Amino acid sequence: MLTGAQYLTSVQDGRRLFIDGKRIEDPLNHPLLASAFRFAASGYDRAYQPGATHGPYYTIPLTQGDLRAQLKAMGHWDDLASVTSTGLMALITAAARMSDHPEYGDYVARIRAYHQHCMENDLRCVQAITDAKGDRRLSPSKQDDPDLYTRIVERRADGVVINGAKLHITAAATAHELIVMPTKMMKPGEEDWAIACAVPVNAEGVSIVNTTYAPRGDDSDYWPISSQASYPEGFIIFDHVFVPNERIFLAGHVEHSATFAHSLGLWERLGGTAHMIEAADTLVGFAQLIAEANGVERISHIKDKIAEMIIYATLIRGCLEAAITHAEQTPEGWVHPNELYTNAAKHYGAAEWNLMVRHLHDIAGGAVLTAPSGRDLANPEIGELVAKYLRGKAGVDAAYRARLFHAIRDYTADAFGGWWLVTLIQSGGGLYAQRMVSTKHYPLDKAKQRALRIANFPETATPTAIASPAQP
Amino acid sequence: MLTGAQYLTSVQDGRRLFIDGKRIEDPLNHPLLASAFRFAASGYDRAYQPGATHGPYYTIPLTQGDLRAQLKAMGHWDDLASVTSTGLMALITAAARMSDHPEYGDYVARIRAYHQHCMENDLRCVQAITDAKGDRRLSPSKQDDPDLYTRIVERRADGVVINGAKLHITAAATAHELIVMPTKMMKPGEEDWAIACAVPVNAEGVSIVNTTYAPRGDDSDYWPISSQASYPEGFIIFDHVFVPNERIFLAGHVEHSATFAHSLGLWERLGGTAHMIEAADTLVGFAQLIAEANGVERISHIKDKIAEMIIYATLIRGCLEAAITHAEQTPEGWVHPNELYTNAAKHYGAAEWNLMVRHLHDIAGGAVLTAPSGRDLANPEIGELVAKYLRGKAGVDAAYRARLFHAIRDYTADAFGGWWLVTLIQSGGGLYAQRMVSTKHYPLDKAKQRALRIANFPETATPTAIASPAQP
Amino acid sequence: MLTGAQYLTSVQDGRRLFIDGKRIEDPLNHPLLASAFRFAASGYDRAYQPGATHGPYYTIPLTQGDLRAQLKAMGHWDDLASVTSTGLMALITAAARMSDHPEYGDYVARIRAYHQHCMENDLRCVQAITDAKGDRRLSPSKQDDPDLYTRIVERRADGVVINGAKLHITAAATAHELIVMPTKMMKPGEEDWAIACAVPVNAEGVSIVNTTYAPRGDDSDYWPISSQASYPEGFIIFDHVFVPNERIFLAGHVEHSATFAHSLGLWERLGGTAHMIEAADTLVGFAQLIAEANGVERISHIKDKIAEMIIYATLIRGCLEAAITHAEQTPEGWVHPNELYTNAAKHYGAAEWNLMVRHLHDIAGGAVLTAPSGRDLANPEIGELVAKYLRGKAGVDAAYRARLFHAIRDYTADAFGGWWLVTLIQSGGGLYAQRMVSTKHYPLDKAKQRALRIANFPETATPTAIASPAQP
Amino acid sequence: MLTGAQYLTSVQDGRRLFIDGKRIEDPLNHPLLASAFRFAASGYDRAYQPGATHGPYYTIPLTQGDLRAQLKAMGHWDDLASVTSTGLMALITAAARMSDHPEYGDYVARIRAYHQHCMENDLRCVQAITDAKGDRRLSPSKQDDPDLYTRIVERRADGVVINGAKLHITAAATAHELIVMPTKMMKPGEEDWAIACAVPVNAEGVSIVNTTYAPRGDDSDYWPISSQASYPEGFIIFDHVFVPNERIFLAGHVEHSATFAHSLGLWERLGGTAHMIEAADTLVGFAQLIAEANGVERISHIKDKIAEMIIYATLIRGCLEAAITHAEQTPEGWVHPNELYTNAAKHYGAAEWNLMVRHLHDIAGGAVLTAPSGRDLANPEIGELVAKYLRGKAGVDAAYRARLFHAIRDYTADAFGGWWLVTLIQSGGGLYAQRMVSTKHYPLDKAKQRALRIANFPETATPTAIASPAQP
Repeated sequence: MLTGAQYLTSVQDGRRLFIDGKRIEDPLNHPLLASAFRFAASGYDRAYQPGATHGPYYTIPLTQGDLRAQLKAMGHWDDLASVTSTGLMALITAAARMSDHPEYGDYVARIRAYHQHCMENDLRCVQAITDAKGDRRLSPSKQDDPDLYTRIVERRADGVVINGAKLHITAAATAHELIVMPTKMMKPGEEDWAIACAVPVNAEGVSIVNTTYAPRGDDSDYWPISSQASYPEGFIIFDHVFVPNERIFLAGHVEHSATFAHSLGLWERLGGTAHMIEAADTLVGFAQLIAEANGVERISHIKDKIAEMIIYATLIRGCLEAAITHAEQTPEGWVHPNELYTNAAKHYGAAEWNLMVRHLHDIAGGAVLTAPSGRDLANPEIGELVAKYLRGKAGVDAAYRARLFHAIRDYTADAFGGWWLVTLIQSGGGLYAQRMVSTKHYPLDKAKQRALRIANFPETATPTAIASPAQP
Repeated sequence: MLTGAQYLTSVQDGRRLFIDGKRIEDPLNHPLLASAFRFAASGYDRAYQPGATHGPYYTIPLTQGDLRAQLKAMGHWDDLASVTSTGLMALITAAARMSDHPEYGDYVARIRAYHQHCMENDLRCVQAITDAKGDRRLSPSKQDDPDLYTRIVERRADGVVINGAKLHITAAATAHELIVMPTKMMKPGEEDWAIACAVPVNAEGVSIVNTTYAPRGDDSDYWPISSQASYPEGFIIFDHVFVPNERIFLAGHVEHSATFAHSLGLWERLGGTAHMIEAADTLVGFAQLIAEANGVERISHIKDKIAEMIIYATLIRGCLEAAITHAEQTPEGWVHPNELYTNAAKHYGAAEWNLMVRHLHDIAGGAVLTAPSGRDLANPEIGELVAKYLRGKAGVDAAYRARLFHAIRDYTADAFGGWWLVTLIQSGGGLYAQRMVSTKHYPLDKAKQRALRIANFPETATPTAIASPAQP
Repeated sequence: MLTGAQYLTSVQDGRRLFIDGKRIEDPLNHPLLASAFRFAASGYDRAYQPGATHGPYYTIPLTQGDLRAQLKAMGHWDDLASVTSTGLMALITAAARMSDHPEYGDYVARIRAYHQHCMENDLRCVQAITDAKGDRRLSPSKQDDPDLYTRIVERRADGVVINGAKLHITAAATAHELIVMPTKMMKPGEEDWAIACAVPVNAEGVSIVNTTYAPRGDDSDYWPISSQASYPEGFIIFDHVFVPNERIFLAGHVEHSATFAHSLGLWERLGGTAHMIEAADTLVGFAQLIAEANGVERISHIKDKIAEMIIYATLIRGCLEAAITHAEQTPEGWVHPNELYTNAAKHYGAAEWNLMVRHLHDIAGGAVLTAPSGRDLANPEIGELVAKYLRGKAGVDAAYRARLFHAIRDYTADAFGGWWLVTLIQSGGGLYAQRMVSTKHYPLDKAKQRALRIANFPETATPTAIASPAQP
Repeated sequence: MLTGAQYLTSVQDGRRLFIDGKRIEDPLNHPLLASAFRFAASGYDRAYQPGATHGPYYTIPLTQGDLRAQLKAMGHWDDLASVTSTGLMALITAAARMSDHPEYGDYVARIRAYHQHCMENDLRCVQAITDAKGDRRLSPSKQDDPDLYTRIVERRADGVVINGAKLHITAAATAHELIVMPTKMMKPGEEDWAIACAVPVNAEGVSIVNTTYAPRGDDSDYWPISSQASYPEGFIIFDHVFVPNERIFLAGHVEHSATFAHSLGLWERLGGTAHMIEAADTLVGFAQLIAEANGVERISHIKDKIAEMIIYATLIRGCLEAAITHAEQTPEGWVHPNELYTNAAKHYGAAEWNLMVRHLHDIAGGAVLTAPSGRDLANPEIGELVAKYLRGKAGVDAAYRARLFHAIRDYTADAFGGWWLVTLIQSGGGLYAQRMVSTKHYPLDKAKQRALRIANFPETATPTAIASPAQP
């Protein structure tokens, strides 16, 4: 296992990173990225156990108990560790699904070797799936620029060369490996777009253009959350990147082009939903803390709003619990959360987040925006007067109340808050996608039968023949 | 165990029932009550096992597995059987809570004997808790009529005499026993109102005034659901009812006046929430069936609404699952569902029911109200023409489609539908009560600590002393 | 003008009405229809002015002032009078839109004559528009039964013969005239389905199958609202009905097949939305009255819910006000409400109604369902005890409180309440239809330009060419 | 009238401004404030008319037409101009309300003179109302620090000296004048807190501590909205500020301590609601533009969401229109918007804003966060590749699409977006306050009478005496 320091050394590997229109020469010390690398490094240090062969992210859960333990452990993982787990689990699952036919034997062997490689070297991986897509009404082969979906541009004896872009890749700049997968089902004739593979972040031809919610100011008290922990979003470009054969997991077999995305789906929402529950609890905590600091925690409509927030957090948590209680097994014996419950939890949590943020703002008051900063409090000329007026009831000092306001602003009404708003909706493909997945996994036929039974349809009834069962 | 027929004989016991301003002379054949007795009888028959000593309602769950099994079994119980279980479980729990002090020894012994008595005789019981309340701002002893909360009006050597009323008692008219409990905490000086006891439905001085959503017409095809199964709501009046000592479970010990209601709270929402899940599935089933019958099941906004309904049903189910996974144990070793999850599920299911009904109506169309009846279809003069125009796409006959419309109207837009709207909100004490209970059981302190940690408050911070942890 | 009594005589004209599978021989005295005829008659009597030539329903508004006056007057019209106005206004508007070409000269003249005829004879008319539709994915000419959309089956020198059905026609059984219109645009080749005409309710071959929310019980105190006023919903069947030439307003000119429906759209939502506002105010009124009767009107969360209901009512009212302030003029100089505002008001009012009903039920409590009836209160054996326990705080008697509960149940949780739920959603074609109409009338281009301006796009920017305007 | 340049000169008056813990020496060139002064200056230039004596902000509307014209004009005013109008209108109204008694004669005369002074010198004013409040459960005189509500600390012959703070004062740093008003009703004994007056921003003892959503980065393409226009929020401290007699509008007359706040209420929501409507239209515009740029504008669920946004914008606009149509007149003949409609519009717009933002994010996709910047596009090394993959369908270039994403992020998911979220909820005192005001202005008695009429209560009915009206 690597220590944080070893990790920091490992990523100084010549990777091509950009932000704000400039190539980043020294990522570890760039004002907008440094905290991301520090955050990833702290994840290594938290997990580090001398003598252990590898971190917990590389382990496949085999029982419901494993899954529940993993969910609990995840609370201590950083996001990069989480997506490493998700990405490798998706690969392993895809391998299992391809293992029924000798034709795919190479792919299966390579995936297993790659999993071993990452585990042994304690590497961090991100899954790179969403393509540029160009005109969304057209399939990959119909786009006026064939690179709008990542594709093979050249096949060589020792590997392939790929072009394309992968979007919205959280923490890509801080990872070691990009796990590239097709974004959707490809059709016969689209063999070049049926490409899954692994690419090191510093491979020749890879560039990552970054955006981030990391604060642009240097006052870590004013942004008490986002100044400490942030991951950039990566817009990854593959410009004639060579992938050696041993890192190719699919190349042209369109019949398995969607296998990777589906495998990913099994695993990816566990972490996301678990994270959302913690965020929901955090909102409740802020609401109660600021209500107390403002002295309004006993007012009826305030309590009512906090109760709604509590029920919100509890519903998501309950539904994720059910996803684990009803965990499903792959044919290989691996245990993943129930998809219906996970999707329902994810949808609800995302759909109602904005309302919960509104409740928090309604409770907290305008000082979320207007509270002077810690530096104002420290200013020798004005600080004392600021403190005099920014305090709450007796026992609640200005510095304490100010920090709560800044934390709430940072978390819900500044760049990081905006990142939450968009990310909760978009992760997992938008609310619409989650509705469709939920429908797919819900036992609709059983519900129909129940309705027919409740309505006292005779058992022999069909839409074309029905005799009244009940009339005397 | 009793058969349905034996049950029907047993309830012909001189009970004083009223409806529409008239004393009911022959309950089993009263047009508005007959189906309720039939329904209760069918519950006996479904559960009947020759040789079995008693039905499953009388058993106390001792493990999470028991609880889960009971939840599953409940799907086959009628409501009267469910409340019998809830009521007796509440009594048994109250007994356990009073068993720590010899002063309450008689109460404890009587409750256990009573439980045995009900079990051995396969009796059905309803819990009678809500008082008339009069002026809600005043406590029982301050009301201008002391009977507005049920109370002891006379104490005798062999028992007590009580006056009062208990409201909203579903299925009371069809039960054998009324389990009377105080509606809330009584204060010193209110000993007369601290009365818990059991009273047979046909006891001298007991009257039950009924209301019902049972249909007033005789067309069982037009009300395919409510014509088959309905329970009346009872307004129970106790007019100088004598309660013998062996049926008195509390009489004057105000310190335990709320013990019964709290014990009831542990058990009562399991059945209610389980029932709500089935109702949610039923709504989904109706939505999909009618969409198919109308030929609109592939239209995007229809699918979207059904997906929302699916997510609704799944969230309630998931949260109830969590309530069982995190079942709690009483000191006596009995297992009851986690209160936070149960309350959150109940609140959400009740709060969003109306919206789901709106979705169903939006999908189904105006024929929910305007579809001619089965009798219209059978009319020799006009039936054929009605059938010609009431059919759906090829393969969907008028009789089938009509029955679906009638079932949806009956379930959501007629007297039974109205009963659902009110009952879902009111059972368990209104949405406000459920919010307060959820807040009580949520670990608010943990959420506050999480928020402080997220906001990077220094660990030593207090509202009156905080030093910036992060600023260099 | 007719008096109520004259109206009642006029509808004894041999019309073929059905309900519950039976032909209605004596409509005026049928227990489920009598109140509808009485209600319509009372509308005549309220409007009757000796010497006046005709009621206000036949007048076309020419100014915004007229429209506002009409909106105010409508509060006193019964529904049948309202739809008479809407239907004739739609015809007159369609005539105007066809008046630009001599080819349609006959249609125009006949419509004007018909309008005159209805006005002079004080006739009540309903618009009959929704067809049976069969398989909704198929156009009229593609259905396996051509009658599934109303059509001409025979053309004669003196008129046409039509077959078909028109669904969801409120109050049809009580009207004099059916104004038949195509339900949608017909295409070339579908000339037979391009039929608009007027048919007397008692015409040979017309049958109306009715459904109703009129109570099935005879206790007018228990159904204080629906027992007094109700209109049946009609399922109208045309079985080889002859229409003489002077009542044909379109026959085969497919290019104007949608003109009638569009004209109807201009007028029909005014009455519906006005009615909805009154209903919203009524909900507020019930909520406040029952809160006061229960003694909870000062409790914070109760006040909060009533405030939400007030805002709901105010938003609908405000938006309808705006529809009148921004009334639009037809080329003929007739003034109709702005469609965007009307549709937005209608959508919002319908979409949130169920939530407001939930608030009312949450405030009122379970006695909405379980309050004994007035007849129970009058029963000599039990009435006094019922009164004792059904009263509220001092000053609120049982009879008063009971009637409030019954009114709330009747209005929101019984058959009439169910009619509201469905009708508010379905009138005007479902929520989806109203969203689409709103989009059509909203100045989307202006909103796009505003967004571009806010985003500081240079004025010369296009999607393919944009230079940064702001960067120094 | 002043030109923008003259305004910029006028504010270089020694005002004490702070931000980020530092005194601002050169406000016009401070990176976080410069754009605010520029923005205010551009407001002057837009309004400037050579020869005109004063801008439109100083004029009192006397007719509904004036009000409607003002509403329209406001679209072109900057926020500082708007609040100048609101603040002076509030003063003038308060003067009118005090003019009935000679005791207040001085106040009245001073206010009129002050209004004249501001108008003649084209001054910008902000109303300073919200106090620090300390322990919210305690009244001003009970706080442990008497300055927690602004108060008179010394009375002199020529004026008074005040202490206190006023919070959440948008644009204070850019104004000329602070219009100070009591935040609520004061009681006898609290004469020192009953202080209303005007204070120049640069008065001795005044300090303003600022916060702002102005971007911290210098890329005006990445923050295309907030880089152009922003106003800081001011935390204003009065430290022994002398107010000369002619600027004192209330000093000790507690009976009029709430008159100013109430007068303000009449005027302040007009501008806020008008602004909100424009924001709603802007959201719609962004949603449609990005849907088109992404090529998804014809997808059903996208259209559905945009339709909801359209209805949202239309309802607010409609309700504000109604507020003007039903404008009310003060006794002085001044016309202000109807309070019920304005509050309902404000409440609805604020309550649903977060949901509309969610819709926009759901439509736009993750690139709201992850789209590379214009500078990335301009980078010679990577720009071309970024452009290749960031473009939409044919005809939609990367630069155009990127700017849309950045604008949406800036407006809804960055610091400015957070400012909106909080400000919409908090302006006007939180949702709760708006509910209470709506209730106050709604004709609740009329709604109760309507409900009683609908429920067929006899006209003579009272809660204690009611005879059935309907039963035969």
